[in-house]
Amino acid sequence: MTVRVAVAGASGYAGGELLRLLLAHPEVSIGALTAGGNAGSPLAQHQPHLLPLADRVLQDTTAEQLSGHEVVFLALPHGKSAEIAAALGQDVLVIDCGADHRLTSAADWQRWYGGQHAGSWPYGMPELPGARQDLVGVKRVAVPGCFPTAASLALAPAFAAGLVAPEVVVVAVTGTSGAGKALKPNLLASEVLGSASAYGVGGVHRHTPEIAQNLGKIAGNPVAVSFTPVLAPMARGILATCTAPLIGSADEVRSVYEKACAEEPFVHLLPEGTWPTTAATLGSNAVHLQVTVDADAGRLVVVAAVDNLTKGTAGAAVQCMNLALGLPETSGLSTVGVAP
Amino acid sequence: MTVRVAVAGASGYAGGELLRLLLAHPEVSIGALTAGGNAGSPLAQHQPHLLPLADRVLQDTTAEQLSGHEVVFLALPHGKSAEIAAALGQDVLVIDCGADHRLTSAADWQRWYGGQHAGSWPYGMPELPGARQDLVGVKRVAVPGCFPTAASLALAPAFAAGLVAPEVVVVAVTGTSGAGKALKPNLLASEVLGSASAYGVGGVHRHTPEIAQNLGKIAGNPVAVSFTPVLAPMARGILATCTAPLIGSADEVRSVYEKACAEEPFVHLLPEGTWPTTAATLGSNAVHLQVTVDADAGRLVVVAAVDNLTKGTAGAAVQCMNLALGLPETSGLSTVGVAP
Amino acid sequence: MTVRVAVAGASGYAGGELLRLLLAHPEVSIGALTAGGNAGSPLAQHQPHLLPLADRVLQDTTAEQLSGHEVVFLALPHGKSAEIAAALGQDVLVIDCGADHRLTSAADWQRWYGGQHAGSWPYGMPELPGARQDLVGVKRVAVPGCFPTAASLALAPAFAAGLVAPEVVVVAVTGTSGAGKALKPNLLASEVLGSASAYGVGGVHRHTPEIAQNLGKIAGNPVAVSFTPVLAPMARGILATCTAPLIGSADEVRSVYEKACAEEPFVHLLPEGTWPTTAATLGSNAVHLQVTVDADAGRLVVVAAVDNLTKGTAGAAVQCMNLALGLPETSGLSTVGVAP
Amino acid sequence: MTVRVAVAGASGYAGGELLRLLLAHPEVSIGALTAGGNAGSPLAQHQPHLLPLADRVLQDTTAEQLSGHEVVFLALPHGKSAEIAAALGQDVLVIDCGADHRLTSAADWQRWYGGQHAGSWPYGMPELPGARQDLVGVKRVAVPGCFPTAASLALAPAFAAGLVAPEVVVVAVTGTSGAGKALKPNLLASEVLGSASAYGVGGVHRHTPEIAQNLGKIAGNPVAVSFTPVLAPMARGILATCTAPLIGSADEVRSVYEKACAEEPFVHLLPEGTWPTTAATLGSNAVHLQVTVDADAGRLVVVAAVDNLTKGTAGAAVQCMNLALGLPETSGLSTVGVAP
Repeated sequence: MTVRVAVAGASGYAGGELLRLLLAHPEVSIGALTAGGNAGSPLAQHQPHLLPLADRVLQDTTAEQLSGHEVVFLALPHGKSAEIAAALGQDVLVIDCGADHRLTSAADWQRWYGGQHAGSWPYGMPELPGARQDLVGVKRVAVPGCFPTAASLALAPAFAAGLVAPEVVVVAVTGTSGAGKALKPNLLASEVLGSASAYGVGGVHRHTPEIAQNLGKIAGNPVAVSFTPVLAPMARGILATCTAPLIGSADEVRSVYEKACAEEPFVHLLPEGTWPTTAATLGSNAVHLQVTVDADAGRLVVVAAVDNLTKGTAGAAVQCMNLALGLPETSGLSTVGVAP
Repeated sequence: MTVRVAVAGASGYAGGELLRLLLAHPEVSIGALTAGGNAGSPLAQHQPHLLPLADRVLQDTTAEQLSGHEVVFLALPHGKSAEIAAALGQDVLVIDCGADHRLTSAADWQRWYGGQHAGSWPYGMPELPGARQDLVGVKRVAVPGCFPTAASLALAPAFAAGLVAPEVVVVAVTGTSGAGKALKPNLLASEVLGSASAYGVGGVHRHTPEIAQNLGKIAGNPVAVSFTPVLAPMARGILATCTAPLIGSADEVRSVYEKACAEEPFVHLLPEGTWPTTAATLGSNAVHLQVTVDADAGRLVVVAAVDNLTKGTAGAAVQCMNLALGLPETSGLSTVGVAP
Repeated sequence: MTVRVAVAGASGYAGGELLRLLLAHPEVSIGALTAGGNAGSPLAQHQPHLLPLADRVLQDTTAEQLSGHEVVFLALPHGKSAEIAAALGQDVLVIDCGADHRLTSAADWQRWYGGQHAGSWPYGMPELPGARQDLVGVKRVAVPGCFPTAASLALAPAFAAGLVAPEVVVVAVTGTSGAGKALKPNLLASEVLGSASAYGVGGVHRHTPEIAQNLGKIAGNPVAVSFTPVLAPMARGILATCTAPLIGSADEVRSVYEKACAEEPFVHLLPEGTWPTTAATLGSNAVHLQVTVDADAGRLVVVAAVDNLTKGTAGAAVQCMNLALGLPETSGLSTVGVAP
Repeated sequence: MTVRVAVAGASGYAGGELLRLLLAHPEVSIGALTAGGNAGSPLAQHQPHLLPLADRVLQDTTAEQLSGHEVVFLALPHGKSAEIAAALGQDVLVIDCGADHRLTSAADWQRWYGGQHAGSWPYGMPELPGARQDLVGVKRVAVPGCFPTAASLALAPAFAAGLVAPEVVVVAVTGTSGAGKALKPNLLASEVLGSASAYGVGGVHRHTPEIAQNLGKIAGNPVAVSFTPVLAPMARGILATCTAPLIGSADEVRSVYEKACAEEPFVHLLPEGTWPTTAATLGSNAVHLQVTVDADAGRLVVVAAVDNLTKGTAGAAVQCMNLALGLPETSGLSTVGVAP
């Protein structure tokens, strides 16, 4: 079986990571590569690490260029996906790495992103309770945000088992690639090197409602989420420290997490006493978890490490493509990081 | 006035930072420099950045070498300070950068550090309510830990004003120098570069009881502290994200912090909308704060940036020396960081 | 075909990279994993990024443990390989990632490494003139050093075409992983972060004679090599700036390099005007080259980027295994880097 | 004595470093701060590390705003300085941190920068032979480029003593701040972190003729300079590896360098066997040098470390101000770095 895929937004970081993974996928043939302002330039100028595609030239991101593929990955600025998807037709598998179709609530969309809600698509996090089977055979997938991936997979087992109260605090250290290639002063190397900085503080980061949506669905009740991202001097990686008041038994915590991870191909509970590092997940689709109880503070503490571009974006997209197409879920994906 | 000072532990990072600051202090003459295993070797081998002291040779850390100075700074492994201090006599100002005399509770010391509690000394954080005047004229100072400095100064105004409930979550990103020069595998550059990692998770880091002690004293009641340090690929700096449930009025938050910082020479509330970066504090004794309310989560969020070696250790030590000796509190200290 | 391989030195950086590549190799089954001081501990403790091997325990590095495999990779401190290899027998393919069998001159060995020369093995750089066919079917391979890989592949075409005089200057910036996991003070993250430093200056680095050996063999005459490595704050990657006086025609330079790279699967000449970055080679077996002529200075300038652990060590080892066994040379190896 | 100074280009990195140093200068009062596109915005927005100036607002860079000061520092894009300087009058000390007045040859200017040569000013590198006295009392100073500072101070003693042939190879690793705050894709943190890259290769970097000018003046003959800058993942610092064929006696090398450095307040020859690190010079005006002879290659090798923003730009500017005004040369400047 060979699946012909196109990538829209191929000159950005998410697009580059999609191509890196798709080049290693045994069932995929890479078709059109499109971009916005970079259309017409060689891919090699933007993605010098993708040598097998060094001869490719970027085309315009239009439905015409993207048509004729079985799968189209969209790695576009938010607000751009719905129109393209509509033009591609319902028999094409469209996998949106952007935010447009993640939130189920139009009111939430309006508040956090502004403008018209494009509607929600099947949410591409197969590890959430009941989610895997719902992705089989679908033709539209909303790939989760990178922070919601880390935070949701960290806390989903606890909420599913009723271990914690719905008052979550998440502080997530992130590399810079999550912010994309936009030329912003605070993303200059001179500003980032040797420095840690918080941003989107006070619940204003757009990934906040997505975390609340995921955990609330499991809890069956609203979950209050205090989320703070912190930018650190590394290109990739998210390390999310996630805590909530413990209301269940501390004795059950480890077995709950062991069971939750046991069958998951990409979610890995580390041996007791070992804590996650983002380096160990670099370039891999794995999530590394560790959990403990802080008895003095009365809180469960879970730490999750993911590569924001792989499991946090492009790896999840490929994983969902596999599920949607009926391929083995792990095809073309690795749990091996590039370290050190 | 010229004060003759000695530094014990001069080959380590805290010792080096003390010397960097003391070289710039207008009232100080640098006397004995001592070390443990590095005694006998040139200081230049360990501190190549301190050119004016390039000819110095490290002596043994003994009371004999340290005697004859008006001020002795101790930057030693914990458990080593009490004996040296006792031998130096009560008329010498001894400033302990280590942990030995920070905790007031012998039970806490026993639990967190083990061994015999050496007793507590005046705690060197003049910005805490009522603390400044208690440091004038003292002959012993316990310099606060680096994380407690960031977390306590971030939350002290909120507790003093009754704005928050005593359930605190602190996640603090830190550079590697806080761990000192010990040769540990996880501190190798190859392990740290490109990676974030949590450690001491679940309330087991020794700075936890110190944060609780500081905040509890202000609150007048015990404060539960969930504290997680995260190691990031930078040599210096702490960025502490500190949250607690808001119980006071959100409208008062900013004015409370403005008043708390107004008279402080080293604690600076950033303009609204600007968030701290550790780079802006590098090498300075300043604490950069920003505060906001997350109405959805019902929490106050304060972010603090400090240089762990300066305000977090050596700068606080010099600040306390100034207060103890009756010098201007800011003498030899700067609020200007080295950036980018 | 499934080849059963063992890795000696599996807890180090070279060993970890070998395992990362071997896990992705379609014809390989991973057998014994051995170590020195780390024998008896779980591999996961040392290589948390290798999830598929998380259950393995390290065994002692002895001929007994390593026997019974068709291929044995040695990633050992220098001086340790000869004895093990002798015990394994001549029908086992032994691939030595260490230095023991690289230098053909016993006098050079004696001068640069000291002790008894173990003899030289077929040198595992198939891209050198005439070298590829000599590796087919061999049972012993000496994997080149990381710096010699970058410098030799950068300058080999120029020497083969007679373009340059034999007075070479190489300054190579390197990440820290090349130094291994040894606990040395100058390799602590606090020392490396934010800092560049030269070491082994003045022709004393042990890779100097290996570069001279490679280039001298092509030139047919001794080549003087001034080599300076510079440590930079990154975990992986070598960027080698290589210059020599131009004695051929500047007009031929580009075509010489184009021809030299045209058939090579792993040596890639970048488009004119584009210069290599180490990031684009991270985790890949590719060498990125660019060449120009400095007419004012009368010198050819070639810049080469490689991943020191992949093409600079473990990737070359796998490439040589493929050649030795008659597998496709690129099997299990990628030219795709992990960027950003 | 209080000297009133203005800084044009105060929102950039060079401008920020000037202000950091001027705040610590005992004889200086800081007057107008001007900018181009950032005029009208608070300085704190661009230089959050300069707390004592947090209330300042940037004015337009015009002669009117800059007039009324005894000293005006220009940190402007090249081509902008001559007009401003002409309007300020000959009794104002104008110190140009830009390139406009460094090159003495109009033909060189035309070739390397293009456009009309603005003429040359006294060159602000007092450590060059005979240069110091020529700076006393001047009213115009051209501050040297950062790479020429490192390379010229590294090799000046060798050329002055006739130790080397005029065929120089310089490869200089640099932090990102030398490129300023311009929003260029290759300066994004995601591109720089974990990566080394060469640029301006083949003698096309504009600092090349300045190095040749400095060394040629000492040698009394043209000096061929092969110069390659390499960008490394650090914000500050230059580590220049400088080599040339040795034609003098190897035995004299060390004493030549010892004598050359003996009286210099800012150029420091490290103890034998110790090699420079950029970290040790961070924020200081010191140049750290080490020298050796590579007998096999027949070359002198000198490694120099400087902070590109301090001794490489703003520190040299202040040093020259001191000389021009008759203040102590070291006033307001430190040889103490901020490390680690």
